[in-house]
Amino acid sequence: MVAEQSGYGAGTREYDNFPNVLRVMIGESKGPNEAEEKLWMIETNIDDVSPQIIGHVMDRAFELGARDCYFTAVQMKKNRPGVLLSILCDGDQKELMMELLFTETTTLGARSYEVARRALERNIVRVETIYGPIDVKVANLNGRVVNAMPEFDQCRAAAQRANVALKEVEDAARLAFRMSDKL
Amino acid sequence: MVAEQSGYGAGTREYDNFPNVLRVMIGESKGPNEAEEKLWMIETNIDDVSPQIIGHVMDRAFELGARDCYFTAVQMKKNRPGVLLSILCDGDQKELMMELLFTETTTLGARSYEVARRALERNIVRVETIYGPIDVKVANLNGRVVNAMPEFDQCRAAAQRANVALKEVEDAARLAFRMSDKL
Amino acid sequence: MVAEQSGYGAGTREYDNFPNVLRVMIGESKGPNEAEEKLWMIETNIDDVSPQIIGHVMDRAFELGARDCYFTAVQMKKNRPGVLLSILCDGDQKELMMELLFTETTTLGARSYEVARRALERNIVRVETIYGPIDVKVANLNGRVVNAMPEFDQCRAAAQRANVALKEVEDAARLAFRMSDKL
Amino acid sequence: MVAEQSGYGAGTREYDNFPNVLRVMIGESKGPNEAEEKLWMIETNIDDVSPQIIGHVMDRAFELGARDCYFTAVQMKKNRPGVLLSILCDGDQKELMMELLFTETTTLGARSYEVARRALERNIVRVETIYGPIDVKVANLNGRVVNAMPEFDQCRAAAQRANVALKEVEDAARLAFRMSDKL
Amino acid sequence: MVAEQSGYGAGTREYDNFPNVLRVMIGESKGPNEAEEKLWMIETNIDDVSPQIIGHVMDRAFELGARDCYFTAVQMKKNRPGVLLSILCDGDQKELMMELLFTETTTLGARSYEVARRALERNIVRVETIYGPIDVKVANLNGRVVNAMPEFDQCRAAAQRANVALKEVEDAARLAFRMSDKL
Amino acid sequence: MVAEQSGYGAGTREYDNFPNVLRVMIGESKGPNEAEEKLWMIETNIDDVSPQIIGHVMDRAFELGARDCYFTAVQMKKNRPGVLLSILCDGDQKELMMELLFTETTTLGARSYEVARRALERNIVRVETIYGPIDVKVANLNGRVVNAMPEFDQCRAAAQRANVALKEVEDAARLAFRMSDKL
Repeated sequence: MVAEQSGYGAGTREYDNFPNVLRVMIGESKGPNEAEEKLWMIETNIDDVSPQIIGHVMDRAFELGARDCYFTAVQMKKNRPGVLLSILCDGDQKELMMELLFTETTTLGARSYEVARRALERNIVRVETIYGPIDVKVANLNGRVVNAMPEFDQCRAAAQRANVALKEVEDAARLAFRMSDKL
Repeated sequence: MVAEQSGYGAGTREYDNFPNVLRVMIGESKGPNEAEEKLWMIETNIDDVSPQIIGHVMDRAFELGARDCYFTAVQMKKNRPGVLLSILCDGDQKELMMELLFTETTTLGARSYEVARRALERNIVRVETIYGPIDVKVANLNGRVVNAMPEFDQCRAAAQRANVALKEVEDAARLAFRMSDKL
Repeated sequence: MVAEQSGYGAGTREYDNFPNVLRVMIGESKGPNEAEEKLWMIETNIDDVSPQIIGHVMDRAFELGARDCYFTAVQMKKNRPGVLLSILCDGDQKELMMELLFTETTTLGARSYEVARRALERNIVRVETIYGPIDVKVANLNGRVVNAMPEFDQCRAAAQRANVALKEVEDAARLAFRMSDKL
Repeated sequence: MVAEQSGYGAGTREYDNFPNVLRVMIGESKGPNEAEEKLWMIETNIDDVSPQIIGHVMDRAFELGARDCYFTAVQMKKNRPGVLLSILCDGDQKELMMELLFTETTTLGARSYEVARRALERNIVRVETIYGPIDVKVANLNGRVVNAMPEFDQCRAAAQRANVALKEVEDAARLAFRMSDKL
Repeated sequence: MVAEQSGYGAGTREYDNFPNVLRVMIGESKGPNEAEEKLWMIETNIDDVSPQIIGHVMDRAFELGARDCYFTAVQMKKNRPGVLLSILCDGDQKELMMELLFTETTTLGARSYEVARRALERNIVRVETIYGPIDVKVANLNGRVVNAMPEFDQCRAAAQRANVALKEVEDAARLAFRMSDKL
Repeated sequence: MVAEQSGYGAGTREYDNFPNVLRVMIGESKGPNEAEEKLWMIETNIDDVSPQIIGHVMDRAFELGARDCYFTAVQMKKNRPGVLLSILCDGDQKELMMELLFTETTTLGARSYEVARRALERNIVRVETIYGPIDVKVANLNGRVVNAMPEFDQCRAAAQRANVALKEVEDAARLAFRMSDKL
């Protein structure tokens, strides 16, 4: 019943089936163990393309394998509210991303510079919640857990199934992760 | 010992002194019970004042009792990166806030319009955590708890005392609140 | 062949099957004929919710029938990079949108004020392009066509089918619309 | 000699011809004496127009008599970096500005709401500086001078003539205004 | 007659003098043929200068030959709504741009780093439209036309002469360019 | 008396005790004499941390010795209004700042790149104003004074003591500095 499932009252139920809480390490270590990798930041300032197309470029960039893509509002000449389009990618994707920008937008030039990226070692831990199993991304720094982030898409899907707020599911997953520490 | 206090291992200790977790309702209901109140939004676009002074105006606005004060970057004429300064206040403070803007900034005019603000009924609940007692602001919508926010300043102070990450203390407070549900 | 279809060379092909260009008025007049309607702007400043959740709220707002939903970066107290969440909706949806904000975010209060919205009368016209049929939204002001915007989602789908740039398809649709004027 | 004119050394010269500093009240009182006037804020969110055109709309808005026009970067649906275009105008210009937006942009709808604007009474005072005469806009609140802003365009022109930094001329004008207080 | 010239009806006239549409290649190839050049990005965060002066710096930067200059709103310490001023320039202009920043603003330090810029080969093609001749900047990637952008200033001037919307002229120029493909 | 002290009338008093104006060079030359130093820019895009925590990170970064720390609003995937957190620091602080980001935020990776920073030589000059002594930071470029900025915190404290606008005190300090040039 939704009324029971939603709200913090739901928390109580969680502790009843406490012994059943299961924690499974399903993910291998990912990312260079606190090492640095070299990536490229590709940037272009756009003042003559519609935001519709710029949004499309973000979708395409991720489809093509960009590490990240984001926009920054910038103020350009002649009172133009421009957009700084940034793509973070591996060296062997640099040409591909440049071609994406040149083909989909009207830019005549794009900049690039190398950056060093340091990533934390991370594992995936699956925890049980009253909203179903949720994977938690666990990051370690110097052997200590510094982050435990529930997978967004799984939380959103679970929240829609149970018809509760997304933050309910995220909190439940974080709670389950902490609980499972002592099993 | 910091190493033990920080990181999620700390979670374990929490459950040991579990029976001692105390939850005290210390706050009276605040805010109109889901009713609406009339407030004024005062806005002025600034293109000839240094950001140093604009930051000072925010401090002053809160000192004078503004409900809220925030800045929005706006693009103004002649390629000026301006700032939209917004102050939300009660009707009887409107004149005072106008005078603040006219005195501290160089604006020659300020706009205002009335808005209806709907607030949730909220109480303060104090919970015990391994980082000490933390007040949690609990908001109700239609009789159901929809939010439980640990007090930021208390969490920050506790995090600095224990030399742990702020998010550690916030999570511990949220956890303690959920735990205390079943006592 | 992709190489032929992409690039402006494709334009040529367009004119070959020119006599076949078909234009069908498929849309009824929409929106109040240049009249004004009353809508509500609902706003809340958020400084204690993760952007992940804020993005989710936008999806939910549109699912629930909001006329529009958008975010504005604002600078809030204590050096917080906050977000002004704005929802434009009909009067009978005001309560629903308020509940969305109170349930999904941690806001304790939301503002609202009435705005008058003037919309142009518009029709949907379907045009043929070498990338397939595309609907064009045509807006009239004082009986004169002032806008002809190809439907974004159709253009994007067609661009992906033909493996050409989105702007290629949008230009082709605009061109076909102008061409069909004289048939 | 430029080298002598630029830099603060220039300040010294200023005081030599001190007795000659002239101050002339050339401006009549302007603006409603601290009274409020009703204006309209016209807003539209744009996600399908190039920044080039948006910049052009600002120029046109001012040419047509808008009190103010500015842009705010907003994040719209489908990952679009949109622009909130705002025009502040008198009631009898509302239709004209709406038509500007509908004609020059591709927006299908624009919002409007009334705001009260409070302006300070102001006069124009001309002061003499080593860079030539500069008009200073002086604003009064409750009979007390609260602002004295040198006219930007005059300062910029003078700075270019003397080949000094714009801030040099603005400071010189502010200084001259304060000096002339005691003549 | 203006009423006839404006609106899409104008499109019809365009095709009447179709055979007369002339296309002249007037521009030499520009920019390194898809090669990369080294440029410098100069950046400084400003929190104690008025936007009026920052806007002036942009004008000066372009006058002095900067490749690009733009502003990004940033949130700085002590609740200051600062501005990140960015200048892109050639290596031999780096000192000049630094001096501009130090002289016109109050910054005490500016950062710089080298970026690689890849530009497309481009030509200028003049096309005839009912609004007069317009130059179109045509960019090639791997021998294929990927962009055809009408010159903004020419379009704006033509739009003002004909008293039509700027987007009308830009569309007409794009259309004429595509038409001329098959002559 | 406050009424007399505030407003520009205060300026007059300044000149009465003119002979007493004292200027003391109290600061040693600071910063590399217009030389360049190497610094690191550390950046991370945050889309899953609350602004409350991000604001806290800025405080911590400065406590730990960052040269600068600022936020830029960025638009990230899935309609998230993210924040680009930037920290400028010395090379030997790079690890410390990375650890700050990994510990206090939930980021899994942070970028870094080296930048060259050019700083102006500067001295501190103390001037007397009717609001008390104020330190002025004086910067030189090629042996010429290009900036004279009153210390913000001293001006703010003085403004609060005298109950005048902050801009009053800043102007008085700038004026006193110029005056003292000729003593």
